[in-house]
Amino acid sequence: QGILERLDAGEIVIGDGGFVFALEKRGYVKAGPWTPEATVEHPEAVRQLHREFLRAGSNVLQTFTFYASEDKLENRGNYVAEKISCHKVNEAACDIAREVANEGDALVAGGVSQTPSYLSCKDKREVKAAFQKQLEVFMKKNVDFLIAEYFEHVEEAVWAVEVLKESGKPVAATMCIGPEGDMHGVPPGQCAVQLVKAGASIVGVNCHFDPETSIETVRLMKEGLQAAKLKAHLMCQPLAFHTPDCGKQGFIDLPEFPFGLEPRIATRWDIQKYARKAYDLGIRFIGGCCGFEPYHIRAIAEELAPERGFLPEASEKHGSWGDNLSMHTKPWVRARARKEYWENLKPASGRPYCPCMSKPDGWGVTKGNKELMQQKEATTEQQLKELFQKKK
Amino acid sequence: QGILERLDAGEIVIGDGGFVFALEKRGYVKAGPWTPEATVEHPEAVRQLHREFLRAGSNVLQTFTFYASEDKLENRGNYVAEKISCHKVNEAACDIAREVANEGDALVAGGVSQTPSYLSCKDKREVKAAFQKQLEVFMKKNVDFLIAEYFEHVEEAVWAVEVLKESGKPVAATMCIGPEGDMHGVPPGQCAVQLVKAGASIVGVNCHFDPETSIETVRLMKEGLQAAKLKAHLMCQPLAFHTPDCGKQGFIDLPEFPFGLEPRIATRWDIQKYARKAYDLGIRFIGGCCGFEPYHIRAIAEELAPERGFLPEASEKHGSWGDNLSMHTKPWVRARARKEYWENLKPASGRPYCPCMSKPDGWGVTKGNKELMQQKEATTEQQLKELFQKKK
Amino acid sequence: QGILERLDAGEIVIGDGGFVFALEKRGYVKAGPWTPEATVEHPEAVRQLHREFLRAGSNVLQTFTFYASEDKLENRGNYVAEKISCHKVNEAACDIAREVANEGDALVAGGVSQTPSYLSCKDKREVKAAFQKQLEVFMKKNVDFLIAEYFEHVEEAVWAVEVLKESGKPVAATMCIGPEGDMHGVPPGQCAVQLVKAGASIVGVNCHFDPETSIETVRLMKEGLQAAKLKAHLMCQPLAFHTPDCGKQGFIDLPEFPFGLEPRIATRWDIQKYARKAYDLGIRFIGGCCGFEPYHIRAIAEELAPERGFLPEASEKHGSWGDNLSMHTKPWVRARARKEYWENLKPASGRPYCPCMSKPDGWGVTKGNKELMQQKEATTEQQLKELFQKKK
Amino acid sequence: QGILERLDAGEIVIGDGGFVFALEKRGYVKAGPWTPEATVEHPEAVRQLHREFLRAGSNVLQTFTFYASEDKLENRGNYVAEKISCHKVNEAACDIAREVANEGDALVAGGVSQTPSYLSCKDKREVKAAFQKQLEVFMKKNVDFLIAEYFEHVEEAVWAVEVLKESGKPVAATMCIGPEGDMHGVPPGQCAVQLVKAGASIVGVNCHFDPETSIETVRLMKEGLQAAKLKAHLMCQPLAFHTPDCGKQGFIDLPEFPFGLEPRIATRWDIQKYARKAYDLGIRFIGGCCGFEPYHIRAIAEELAPERGFLPEASEKHGSWGDNLSMHTKPWVRARARKEYWENLKPASGRPYCPCMSKPDGWGVTKGNKELMQQKEATTEQQLKELFQKKK
Repeated sequence: QGILERLDAGEIVIGDGGFVFALEKRGYVKAGPWTPEATVEHPEAVRQLHREFLRAGSNVLQTFTFYASEDKLENRGNYVAEKISCHKVNEAACDIAREVANEGDALVAGGVSQTPSYLSCKDKREVKAAFQKQLEVFMKKNVDFLIAEYFEHVEEAVWAVEVLKESGKPVAATMCIGPEGDMHGVPPGQCAVQLVKAGASIVGVNCHFDPETSIETVRLMKEGLQAAKLKAHLMCQPLAFHTPDCGKQGFIDLPEFPFGLEPRIATRWDIQKYARKAYDLGIRFIGGCCGFEPYHIRAIAEELAPERGFLPEASEKHGSWGDNLSMHTKPWVRARARKEYWENLKPASGRPYCPCMSKPDGWGVTKGNKELMQQKEATTEQQLKELFQKKK
Repeated sequence: QGILERLDAGEIVIGDGGFVFALEKRGYVKAGPWTPEATVEHPEAVRQLHREFLRAGSNVLQTFTFYASEDKLENRGNYVAEKISCHKVNEAACDIAREVANEGDALVAGGVSQTPSYLSCKDKREVKAAFQKQLEVFMKKNVDFLIAEYFEHVEEAVWAVEVLKESGKPVAATMCIGPEGDMHGVPPGQCAVQLVKAGASIVGVNCHFDPETSIETVRLMKEGLQAAKLKAHLMCQPLAFHTPDCGKQGFIDLPEFPFGLEPRIATRWDIQKYARKAYDLGIRFIGGCCGFEPYHIRAIAEELAPERGFLPEASEKHGSWGDNLSMHTKPWVRARARKEYWENLKPASGRPYCPCMSKPDGWGVTKGNKELMQQKEATTEQQLKELFQKKK
Repeated sequence: QGILERLDAGEIVIGDGGFVFALEKRGYVKAGPWTPEATVEHPEAVRQLHREFLRAGSNVLQTFTFYASEDKLENRGNYVAEKISCHKVNEAACDIAREVANEGDALVAGGVSQTPSYLSCKDKREVKAAFQKQLEVFMKKNVDFLIAEYFEHVEEAVWAVEVLKESGKPVAATMCIGPEGDMHGVPPGQCAVQLVKAGASIVGVNCHFDPETSIETVRLMKEGLQAAKLKAHLMCQPLAFHTPDCGKQGFIDLPEFPFGLEPRIATRWDIQKYARKAYDLGIRFIGGCCGFEPYHIRAIAEELAPERGFLPEASEKHGSWGDNLSMHTKPWVRARARKEYWENLKPASGRPYCPCMSKPDGWGVTKGNKELMQQKEATTEQQLKELFQKKK
Repeated sequence: QGILERLDAGEIVIGDGGFVFALEKRGYVKAGPWTPEATVEHPEAVRQLHREFLRAGSNVLQTFTFYASEDKLENRGNYVAEKISCHKVNEAACDIAREVANEGDALVAGGVSQTPSYLSCKDKREVKAAFQKQLEVFMKKNVDFLIAEYFEHVEEAVWAVEVLKESGKPVAATMCIGPEGDMHGVPPGQCAVQLVKAGASIVGVNCHFDPETSIETVRLMKEGLQAAKLKAHLMCQPLAFHTPDCGKQGFIDLPEFPFGLEPRIATRWDIQKYARKAYDLGIRFIGGCCGFEPYHIRAIAEELAPERGFLPEASEKHGSWGDNLSMHTKPWVRARARKEYWENLKPASGRPYCPCMSKPDGWGVTKGNKELMQQKEATTEQQLKELFQKKK
């Protein structure tokens, strides 16, 4: 059954987690460029992560094609464009995802994300061409549906949906925005309306904000759709990091991004609470983005097991609410084998010299780094490209 | 070259990270029992983790035989003993480790750990028999050397070393203790002396405490050896969790163990500081235990690259001190591409409703749970075993 | 010169601090009732606190007549109504304030605050009668101007202003509200407009929120007045507690109120920042409320000394930005004798087992205390009054 | 009854709080020099503070003669030596204390503290002369007993006790040390032994550390005395600040000293716990030092009311464990009127951008301030004196 059949039937669809962050920690992705050449260089590592998400309960395996547009790969991809073509990266991603999906009953979703072309003010035609190129691979490999994700500007997201929509396959679209809306100031409700009008059957948010903030953003999208009398399925794939302190652009601007986010990582219990809240709001495509490891996805599946009637394969290795701790030798550890314990735990940071919240960086905030900024005048994607050319 | 040749030559040997915690999050190990039946059930997952550590710089791949003694597997191992023999688990672990080691130049170390038999007061002969059984597999599979690790009582560790020593292979021994010493009150210095006298060529600590505390414990071991005019190589494989607040038995007693430890996870920069301090103390076998993911091991290798003269394979995907962030579009993120930034960052927890430190649980502390404790009278390993028998 | 002459001339007028909190710590006021019978019982203690504020730079001494309406004193005032009449309390307050004001050049302001009569739904006439009774004393004692302060409902504040206005003396009005507005949902801008229309020459906020939040509320009031093309002087007398976590009703609902607020107390440097921000927004009547001790008022005077051209008397005992520390024996303490040091210090709580923020209590939040709440059904002021009658 | 009669009879004697910190906040004492010329300049302020401590339950009023030795007043006292003689400061202090003591039944204790002469290595004779000069005033004014307090070196404390002892009056001696002992490395137990041998009838600690640490130090003193088979009464007057993070020299070295300590201020409930622990250890002279305000002293008196059989006068304004909150209008505030609530409250700091603990400054730590330190080469008291001469 396809994605829309499942959602239309009221099923809960569980997404997967964050590939770039997980594979960065495993040694296969470079933080900064965040490009997915690993699909060609180390397919076994990508395959294993897909498999873990599948075991954890994912019903959708997204092709690892984040930032895999040709302009991005050329620009940032560790100069891989010379060695590994955009085409190859996308093809390999599709093959790996399908291979693992066949190990269970998951769907494969081909994904596109925002492009350097848009950010460097290329015109609509040029930006659409980038999506078109990836779409060709997705069609050839016959993915089950398509996701346009991680867009900061609804304008570009609409262009992506328009391209993907021509394929005839169902299209989902998620923006990496918070309650304040997109980078041009379009509020979430209006973003959702534009995306649905462009052809998206599923809309929501991914990345940039913690579960709580992301659910609030989807709530605003839902309100916007209701006000416009439009119907669409809702989707949420937030960070597995606590980010109560971030500004409009989310976790990118937090001083801890991307190498000091550890203290913010969500526990499995945080994710169970997220899954419940998302469900209660009416979201039925529930997954994760950066920071989501397989055990976080399993937490979604376990929280919603009563509604779904089954547990994922990986739950065989996980007692509900720490149940297996009842086999521990120490009585006080055995006493932790219960829901109330983990639900109410306020986990300590173990870092008494660190604060609880940070002030986000941003233009105008970075007084101290002004000099550094001036040394690096290249601010547009185009200039960065030149910078890398020179480096080579 | 063998482990002792390398260490004797003054080389830095980098260990691997924590298998049970990493594979628990990936969905292959059950928290509580912590047994390694995944070597038989899901060899591809174990293989992939070994490979990631190898790429990250590990010079030693430990067989995933933690808690793989027959008594433990029978007792706790998800009742696997009926299905999967102790023999099979240990054999598969050796095969996988060797297969991956051959992809690089790593050594394979066969590992044994503390036994339920000792905890339930079985006699020396019986406890030694458990180690002997695992050793037979290690000899058949011809591992490069042996590690007796995760012992809370030096008496049992000495018995393990005595068994392993008979093999003729080099023996390392690490205890999971802090500066207060073993559970019977033997201080670290005396533990080290007893282990070396029993035949260990390498001694140190693993698990239970954070890097800082573990280094302090190894320092006390070093002093003990010097006072006794004994010589041995030093080894350290701590947690990748911050545990300034734990008591004598380490992180087990923290209320966050094992499902709420996320805020305590060390950053890569924390681990670089650890690697430097360990090196400065004279420790030359430097690795990690629970919480250590591949990127933590890479951090050790990167910190000590000047001394070693080379970087690990996975550093190809990691700019030193966040160097790759210089390719980011936002100037204030580019401004993070430098050592001083990450070295001085005090990462926020993002959890303003949580404290920084916890009071460890323990006998006498758990007033509130007394009742729960009384309900579960089974306190010895023997009783637990019976408990599980009934469950089956 | 009167208050309006000063403000009209562009002078900065510095208010005083919080009497009930300061005198509670000194042993003269009861937390809970918060009534000012100390003016009769212990005039020397009230006089000394006035004197300290005068020395610290206060240009206005408010009569200690908070909660000194007859209905409140009867209801709550430690049953003092029988012994000490409302008349006496108010008279003594005026005498003490005038006596100390004459030691410098401060003005005396007679103050009224919200009444139990309003909260228990008495009619306008009855509520106004309570203010009228206090006003008679203020007129007899010839205070310099009048302040209606600590009102949660703009309706009652308007009634108070109407009564006070009839005296012909200048009237200031401050509400204890935050950016969300009054308890009936009237936003700050509209509150300000209503108060000015009722006759207040000076409007703003006092109590309930920290300086930052209070300034934001005054900013909204300023916007409201500008939109309505009304003119008035602005006034701010916030808490000297950090309350980033409080809800609509401010610090009352924080679990720490009133006996655990210590960790939230503002430093003198926090107050200097507040004074600067208040000044920058155009606020010219700058003082404090609960938590403000004399040294906090001095901090306002010191921060604005450049604009005013003089320091208060108590600055003789205070080097600017810790200047006197340059006389300390230890070099590292001497090194603290500078602005940058104190301005940038992030003071530690010394409480690693405590969180940074709390969830405010409130109807619906207090699940755990439901039972307790049900035991005490008396919820209106009227019922409480009966409760106290019975107690007597 | 004298101090020894009371203590010998098993009575609990409650000390007073911290004058220099309280009066600094009130505007009468200069932080840095910390000298008590206010006794002459503003006797009404000193008198009022004494009175508040008396009302709060103090059985001993210490003359406000801290740092009132001639060498200190000359050196640091805001150049007051020219205007106000050491003699006058000490005389006024005695007169004020006696006047207020007569309002109740408190004893007056004449106090001496460590001298610049000792720190600048003057000889025993010269140091003793400084104490002798103050003692003459105490004898003339006939104080009830004597306290030698705030000594960092037991050698100087012994000299002080020897001088005071000659008067024939009872002598108490407290050092401002922690469990690591005095600045020359003499452990607490030995300090106590030396002080008792020199003639002190009461020994203990004051200032520099929080209640918990101070009690631990007194415990070590008690052990030392027991081992030496000496008998003395025990005394404790700690900070009312939480200082779990300080080093050997206590709170002086914390970066927050002295102008950023607010988040560390103890609640009344913290002090009740302190009073109980002190009592349980056998300490019978229980008071406070810097940070102790009248309500903290009242908390001691209230905690120990069951043992003593009475409450202090100021308790008339304080319901036990927040009892008066039962008169609050809001049910959830009324629900706070109980012991368990306040006893278990973990008060939030309201400062999410601040840490919980600080690293103490100190020689060698202050790298960043090295330059500043070099600019100020005057490191000894003698040099500072010259520095101030030049300033004049």
